[in-house]
Amino acid sequence: MAGVALYDTPLQADWLDYNGHLRDASYAVIASLAVDALMDRIGLDAGYRRRTGGTLYTLEMHLHFLHEVKAGDVVQVQLRLLGSDAKRIHADLELHSRDAACTAATVEYMLLHVTQGDAGVRSSPFPPQVVERLGELARASAHLASASAGSRRMALPPSRPAPA
Amino acid sequence: MAGVALYDTPLQADWLDYNGHLRDASYAVIASLAVDALMDRIGLDAGYRRRTGGTLYTLEMHLHFLHEVKAGDVVQVQLRLLGSDAKRIHADLELHSRDAACTAATVEYMLLHVTQGDAGVRSSPFPPQVVERLGELARASAHLASASAGSRRMALPPSRPAPA
Repeated sequence: MAGVALYDTPLQADWLDYNGHLRDASYAVIASLAVDALMDRIGLDAGYRRRTGGTLYTLEMHLHFLHEVKAGDVVQVQLRLLGSDAKRIHADLELHSRDAACTAATVEYMLLHVTQGDAGVRSSPFPPQVVERLGELARASAHLASASAGSRRMALPPSRPAPA
Repeated sequence: MAGVALYDTPLQADWLDYNGHLRDASYAVIASLAVDALMDRIGLDAGYRRRTGGTLYTLEMHLHFLHEVKAGDVVQVQLRLLGSDAKRIHADLELHSRDAACTAATVEYMLLHVTQGDAGVRSSPFPPQVVERLGELARASAHLASASAGSRRMALPPSRPAPA
């Protein structure tokens, strides 16, 4: 997709499974760290969070695993902003393997802006400067083909007759 | 759902975010550890993997986040087997918070059995004893309502007129 470069990281030893491959959940860890980088980029950084009590909650993540990633590799995360409204961000992340030069996984995210206060946690609109930065990301994403957006309902393939 | 109890764990400190809440990706880590427990239960354990080169690859994971989990809590993972065929397992995991006494997240999984050999990795059928154990889990799951199966396509809500 060649999206907006967001984050890259070498693989950490404790992200690997017994085979020396990136464990399924570790793709989610990398995607989550990339969302931290997205928050910094759009102004939902640590200072904003401390000052306002505002942050992002994850509502859904859909991970599609396309290619193994092995010890020693570097993963780069690219973003396509699929949409946003007053409180939500719908985004597609692509995890790219440097060594295999391919897309290793896609992670579709739905994020909700909330404010944590004395009365608990409530969804709340983004401040104007965040809306503006989301608009910039939307424009940068507009020409990108989406790898996973609108991922289908998960289902086993239709059963075929047993081989003779 | 009160599914088949698969795995439970106290929260580890490095699974938490700056708020002391379980990070989104850490739900995936717990689900992944629960799939390890499932593999042991159906006979795809370390001995089987070493002996045969067979293992499970994750094709897709859909996580739905329903409730926060905080430091000090214990998460129990329950399974509903949604279906299986000669090579695939379609399962719904429910992550239950002990402290909040509620479902914290659901994780829908599609898993593929593969064999790793000199010629690379190929999908391969489950051995008969694994098929038998999957049949037992399917029977134990048959009466359970699914929390997340057939999770819908992810989409922003339809836009409403801006408030006056």
